[in-house]
Amino acid sequence: MNATLDGDVVRAAGDARQRFHDARGYGRASGPDVTLARVEAAHLLYRGDIDSVSGMDFRAFFRDSVAGESGFAARFLVYADLRERGFYLAPARDGWPGSADGRAGDADILVFERGEKPGGPVAHRVRVVGEREELAAASLGGRTLAVVDEESEVSYFACTADGGFDGRTEYDLPAGLDADLLDDRVVCWSPPADLYESAFYGQPISGRDDADVDALQLSLVEAADLAARGAVDLDADAVIERGRAVEGERFDRRLSVYRELRDRGVVPKTGYKFGADFRTYDAVETVTDLPHSERLVRVVQPDHRFHPRELALDVRLAGGVRKGMVFALAGDDSNDYLTVERLTP
Amino acid sequence: MNATLDGDVVRAAGDARQRFHDARGYGRASGPDVTLARVEAAHLLYRGDIDSVSGMDFRAFFRDSVAGESGFAARFLVYADLRERGFYLAPARDGWPGSADGRAGDADILVFERGEKPGGPVAHRVRVVGEREELAAASLGGRTLAVVDEESEVSYFACTADGGFDGRTEYDLPAGLDADLLDDRVVCWSPPADLYESAFYGQPISGRDDADVDALQLSLVEAADLAARGAVDLDADAVIERGRAVEGERFDRRLSVYRELRDRGVVPKTGYKFGADFRTYDAVETVTDLPHSERLVRVVQPDHRFHPRELALDVRLAGGVRKGMVFALAGDDSNDYLTVERLTP
Repeated sequence: MNATLDGDVVRAAGDARQRFHDARGYGRASGPDVTLARVEAAHLLYRGDIDSVSGMDFRAFFRDSVAGESGFAARFLVYADLRERGFYLAPARDGWPGSADGRAGDADILVFERGEKPGGPVAHRVRVVGEREELAAASLGGRTLAVVDEESEVSYFACTADGGFDGRTEYDLPAGLDADLLDDRVVCWSPPADLYESAFYGQPISGRDDADVDALQLSLVEAADLAARGAVDLDADAVIERGRAVEGERFDRRLSVYRELRDRGVVPKTGYKFGADFRTYDAVETVTDLPHSERLVRVVQPDHRFHPRELALDVRLAGGVRKGMVFALAGDDSNDYLTVERLTP
Repeated sequence: MNATLDGDVVRAAGDARQRFHDARGYGRASGPDVTLARVEAAHLLYRGDIDSVSGMDFRAFFRDSVAGESGFAARFLVYADLRERGFYLAPARDGWPGSADGRAGDADILVFERGEKPGGPVAHRVRVVGEREELAAASLGGRTLAVVDEESEVSYFACTADGGFDGRTEYDLPAGLDADLLDDRVVCWSPPADLYESAFYGQPISGRDDADVDALQLSLVEAADLAARGAVDLDADAVIERGRAVEGERFDRRLSVYRELRDRGVVPKTGYKFGADFRTYDAVETVTDLPHSERLVRVVQPDHRFHPRELALDVRLAGGVRKGMVFALAGDDSNDYLTVERLTP
C-alpha cells in the first residue's frame, strides 16, 4: 500500500482506515480514509504495512521526517517501543485521540490504559527527551518521562508532584543546651540521651567504648533548627551565617526543607553516602531500633533544570538501596516535592 | 596527667614517653619526654589518658585547636576513627614517624600496615576532607581519601592512578558501509551482522519481530570512531562537528577516551542508565553471550575538581551494580585514568 504526504500529515485511502485505524488504532478517521502523523506513518513503513509514502521508503521518509520535525528520531523510537509493549497510543496533537480540550498539555505521546482504545483513559502522558536535553523540574509532575539515550535505548520515569512523606515521629525537645559552634559543625555538651536516641539529632562523639567525653556532634542544619526551636543555647542567626559561609545560599534551601520535614514529623539525616542532601525516616521510635530510611531527598532551586543523566543516576541509586527519590524544589515561601521513579510501562 | 601546649605541639613528661609513645605509638620521642601533635593530644584527652593540656580540658582544647588549625575537627574525627580500627597512625608532618624525606607528600595522616609500628610500611596515605571541599582529581592517585560528612561520619575511598582495563576483544571491521547522519545519531543501513554481534557497535533498529527494516543505529561517538577507521562511508569530521554541536567540547573528550579504549581492545557502550559516560567490557565474544560489564567510566577534564558528594554518588552506584568506577581525565594529548573504590580500613 502507498500513502501520500500532505503537508505535515500522511493520508492513506483504500482499506487503510479499517486496517490501521479501526483495527489497530493508528491516526484519525477522515471520512473513508485515515490521516496519520509522521510518526505513525513511519511506524507502518517500518513494519512493512505501508510500502511507501509519496514514493519514499522507510529510509527516505525517516530522513525527510528528521529534517522536518525537531526531535523526530527520539519520538519514533519511543513510539515504536511503546507499540511493541502492546499499548494503544497517539501523538499528543490536536485532532488525534485523547488530545481534545487541551488535555494533552505538554506531552508528546498519550498512552492509553492497557486494553483501552485510543481516546479512552490515559495511562501515561509521555514527554520524550534526548539524553542531552535539559528538563525544567517544575514541569514534570504527572508526566511519564521517556529518555532516549545516545545509543537509542529508552528509559521511563514516572514523575509525581508529591514527596509521599508520612511523618509519624514524635518527641519532646529539651531547652537551652550548652553547645559550641566549631568550624562547620556544632558540638553539644552533655546532652540528654533522648535528643539523639528518640529525636535522632546529631551523632554522639561519645559513642565509643574508649571515650571519656559526653557530647553530641550536630550538623549546621540540625543546629540551626534546634537553635530556632530553643533547644540549644546558640544564636540561630549565627549558625545560619556560618552555614552560608561554608555552603552559600544552598544552606538556606536545605534548612528550609529540613525544617518543613521536621515540622511534618519526618526525620531527615544526611544523605551524603548516597550523594543526596538527606535520607528520611517517616517514623523513628528509637535509634537503637532504627527503621530503614524510606527516601532520599535532593534539594534544588525552584527553576532547576534536570540533566537526564543526573536524573538517571539519582533514581537508579535510590532504587538500588530501596528508597524513593524525591526532589525538593525549595522556594522562597514554600517547598514543592517531586518523586521520580523508574517505570517499565 | 597534665601536658603543656608549646607553640603548635604538646609536650608531656613523666612516664608519658613510655605510656603513649613506646607502648601505643603516639607522638615522637624527645629525649625522656614525648612531643604530640594537637590531634594526638586531643585523642589522649578524649580517652581520658591525659587530664588537661595547659589547663584545658577536652572541650577547651578542642575549641582552641579548631580555632588554631584549619580543618582540625575533620582531622580529629578521622584520627579517632582509624585509631579505633586498631591501626598505628601518625600525622603526616616533619619529624613524625613515616614523614622523613618528604615521603608523606600531600597526605594528612599516615596509617601503617596492620601489625606494624609507626614508621614501618605505610598502608594508607590519607587525605582528610570535609564533604564541602573540592578535590583536584589529578592529585588523588595513590591516596586514601577520608571524607567527613556534615554529620561527622567518615567514608573512605581508595584512589588508584590506573583504570585497570584488560582489553581482550578482537574483531575485524568492514569498510565503507552505507550510513546517514540523522540529527544526533547515525543510522547504518544493511550492516554485516558482525558489526553489532562481535564488535558490539550500535543498536539494531531491526531487532524486533515486527520490523521490516535492516539497520543499525549508532551513537555519534561510535559513528565518529567507525568513520575514522573507514568502516562507514561518512566524513568523520562531519560527525565530530555534529557531536560538538549537540554536546560542545565534551564530545571531543568522550571521543578521545572512546577511541583509546577501542584501541586497547575494550568495548565502551553508553553508561547513561548508570549516569556515567560509558560502561565497558574487557572481552566481548558475542553480544548474544555478553559478559557483565566490569567498569563505569566518567570522562572529566584534566583539571577536574571532585565534589565529594558526587564522588560518593558515582562510587556507590558503581559498587551497587558490581562495577569499578573509573574517571578518565581526558587531556589534549593523552588520557589518565583514576579508579576510586570504597574502602573499609
